[in-house]
Amino acid sequence: MSKRSNQRLEVSKSAIDVFAVSTSDQVLSYRRTCNLCYMDSAFWSEVPMSTRHDTGAANLKRSCEILRKRMQNNNSFHEDSFQVRKLEISDKSKGFIELLQQLTVCDSVSEKQFEERFRELSSYGDDHLICVIEDNRSGKIVATGSVFTEKKFIRNCGKVGHIEDVVVDSSARGMQLGKKIVEFLIDHARSTGCYKVILDCSTDNRVFYEKCGFKQKEIQMVKYFI
Amino acid sequence: MSKRSNQRLEVSKSAIDVFAVSTSDQVLSYRRTCNLCYMDSAFWSEVPMSTRHDTGAANLKRSCEILRKRMQNNNSFHEDSFQVRKLEISDKSKGFIELLQQLTVCDSVSEKQFEERFRELSSYGDDHLICVIEDNRSGKIVATGSVFTEKKFIRNCGKVGHIEDVVVDSSARGMQLGKKIVEFLIDHARSTGCYKVILDCSTDNRVFYEKCGFKQKEIQMVKYFI
Repeated sequence: MSKRSNQRLEVSKSAIDVFAVSTSDQVLSYRRTCNLCYMDSAFWSEVPMSTRHDTGAANLKRSCEILRKRMQNNNSFHEDSFQVRKLEISDKSKGFIELLQQLTVCDSVSEKQFEERFRELSSYGDDHLICVIEDNRSGKIVATGSVFTEKKFIRNCGKVGHIEDVVVDSSARGMQLGKKIVEFLIDHARSTGCYKVILDCSTDNRVFYEKCGFKQKEIQMVKYFI
Repeated sequence: MSKRSNQRLEVSKSAIDVFAVSTSDQVLSYRRTCNLCYMDSAFWSEVPMSTRHDTGAANLKRSCEILRKRMQNNNSFHEDSFQVRKLEISDKSKGFIELLQQLTVCDSVSEKQFEERFRELSSYGDDHLICVIEDNRSGKIVATGSVFTEKKFIRNCGKVGHIEDVVVDSSARGMQLGKKIVEFLIDHARSTGCYKVILDCSTDNRVFYEKCGFKQKEIQMVKYFI
């Protein structure tokens, strides 16, 4: 390994682990790791142009410092803006149904229909939870998911959590909001005494759920009536 | 095709479709088709030994007549003996829990636990159904399955039936009791307004569910807490 390469690694380790070297590819990798895609223009405008593709140790160090500060600010900003909470009846007007339309067939739902179903599901208490993430900047619902509890006789009259209808708004992907939603649903299932939590997904989404701690087990079969 | 072969086919068509020719292999096939495995000794004792492996048309015809009569009697007997009905609280003493133990981990359940869970599930009315088949000869529960209804916002505030915990007693397999159970659960889901019914199964059971009208769609992911 050349001296120059060694310098790069040294700087990256001491300054910020994920910022390996500042080639375009690795900048992209950094962005992904920190989930900063959604604000990358503003972010990069603060890094002097001359240092973005510079592998010199001094410039790299300077870039890393800027990045680290920005990341710290951004993380707290992220935490404030994207809290997971339970679905509220006012969320219909914040684009909740439009978000579900990105998942599957979901015609418009009238106020009355929404209220009826909302109250019906609320009556199940802990046995049916729908959670959402509202983007506090825009007031829009940008992620949702649900979990309902099945009560069995097997496993000592055990309970199983079924996760359904997880979706993140197309404009808000890459910020790990899906993971946040799924972790919230898993925590709910665990805390209400389920012995396992299950879900069905396409093979495309398997890797995402593996990152959330799931393992593939069986296959899903379906029979449509309409 | 020889004259003899033609005779065989003619007899099989006019007498009883499934009884193609009376070689050992096809007798087995016949038994499977009619689900008579569980009573084959008594059944075959009425067919003269000389005709069982005889390909002559006259003997075949005689065998077929005996088989047909017996099958008619047996079918009505089968219908009377293996009716699908809802789970009742007295079914615990008829081996319901022991049957579930053939499906998965299911420790013994106390009377109190059983009653509590039974009443809890009953309170959901049509939203949670457990059905069973009792063998009226032995008074034992030999098959069961359940379906519960999930209420969604998608699909015009649609409903989905989830089929779970289908099992047939090892001594009662080959009589299409599993199919009877699944059809009962499908009918319940359809009649209560579900737009689809889904279930998870091993790849080994896919063909069985395809015969019940299902198609494979997605994959099941699971996360165990214990």
